[in-house]
Amino acid sequence: MKARVFITLKNGVLDPQGKAIHHALEALGFSGVNDVRAGKMIELDLADATSEADIEDMCRKLLANTVIENFRIERLESAA
Amino acid sequence: MKARVFITLKNGVLDPQGKAIHHALEALGFSGVNDVRAGKMIELDLADATSEADIEDMCRKLLANTVIENFRIERLESAA
Repeated sequence: MKARVFITLKNGVLDPQGKAIHHALEALGFSGVNDVRAGKMIELDLADATSEADIEDMCRKLLANTVIENFRIERLESAA
Repeated sequence: MKARVFITLKNGVLDPQGKAIHHALEALGFSGVNDVRAGKMIELDLADATSEADIEDMCRKLLANTVIENFRIERLESAA
């Protein structure tokens, strides 16, 4: 089973990486960019028995820093 | 308009960050993890006039290194 975890900074947390990307886009001449936020995506290839709760546990214990980050889990059921 | 860009390493490109996450998950006692790939997600808040081609241009020129990375664009239409 495959699963994707999307990790984003919480609202209100400063995002210097996003700011740098924003400035770089403007320097390259792209107009109409209002805001940029940078996040992470982690693709997991898991045993089929892995439950949603297990994945959430991985996020809380390792993948995301829940003080400043939100995470969202997307399970991609493997074709049987 | 909001758009998300997902950037992943191409198949066959070594992913030391993913490997490190994989080892850390195993060290924490999570079994059944076959593989981990680390990627990036960039959330863009754009002017409504921005076209798909513009976003693709941003990816090719700045956001992704197309030699080793693939990108996927997801447009989230703003509620009018």
